[in-house]
Amino acid sequence: MDTLATHQVLGKEELLKHWQGHRNLTRRVIEAFPEKELFEFSIGGMRPFAKLAIEMISIGGPALKAIVSNEVKPYDESKFEPTTKAEILQKWDEETEVINKYYNQIPLERFSEKFNLFGEYEFPIIENIFYFIDNEIHHRGQGYVYLRALGIEPPMFWER
Amino acid sequence: MDTLATHQVLGKEELLKHWQGHRNLTRRVIEAFPEKELFEFSIGGMRPFAKLAIEMISIGGPALKAIVSNEVKPYDESKFEPTTKAEILQKWDEETEVINKYYNQIPLERFSEKFNLFGEYEFPIIENIFYFIDNEIHHRGQGYVYLRALGIEPPMFWER
Repeated sequence: MDTLATHQVLGKEELLKHWQGHRNLTRRVIEAFPEKELFEFSIGGMRPFAKLAIEMISIGGPALKAIVSNEVKPYDESKFEPTTKAEILQKWDEETEVINKYYNQIPLERFSEKFNLFGEYEFPIIENIFYFIDNEIHHRGQGYVYLRALGIEPPMFWER
Repeated sequence: MDTLATHQVLGKEELLKHWQGHRNLTRRVIEAFPEKELFEFSIGGMRPFAKLAIEMISIGGPALKAIVSNEVKPYDESKFEPTTKAEILQKWDEETEVINKYYNQIPLERFSEKFNLFGEYEFPIIENIFYFIDNEIHHRGQGYVYLRALGIEPPMFWER
């Protein structure tokens, strides 16, 4: 093992747990929206929360699958066009399993290797994974404002 | 080295760089607000962005200092009561150095140890640090909605 490995602070299993904890919270934010507002409500010309959830769904699982199979595919959110909250939640849960499955197939040594995600983002895999998580937290924060603007109490941020 | 250490995916230096990259983006979000709106604009009864920035400033540096000195102190944001954007930005930059200084003083083996942060959050130090980062991303996402609602283009999310 090289010297770098002795300076590590986060385990592979911990990172997956951290991510799925965030996904669990995001799921509850999706649930908190009334059906109509999930697809229609927006502020300042931003996308409604359903669109943001579709983006999240189109990133995590497909990205990990591409990393595992070493296939560079463009980002594509056109494959999933839900019209109900139930469809989004069902797909969300399916992707939970997809993420677990492919994440566990990434060998430890690949996390520091670069991968050209969606043919656009050539970064170490660990950075790409943080990007998925951070992007989700960012958009979920947006969802919190939508909920508050609608007079709905969002779930506690620290509940995962 | 134990088996766990061989399953690590993120380096200590990388985590600091990741955090400071986010702080750099948050700084630009603070800058993007007009003076008055920074302190007054809000949606759905949420706090104005200045208040959120004060929270971030009151967490990162003070928390790391407490971890390094092993002192459990309550969370306190009353010590910093800025009235201008310039004051917030100056303090932000000072805290950048405070964070670097104390972060580098945390020995690697302590990251997995529990610390009772602010006498309230008894979690492994690595989890506490992720909480600081995630909390910042979350509130910054809120700031993006405020900016959009004000008709102001926020900085690109991927620029750090």
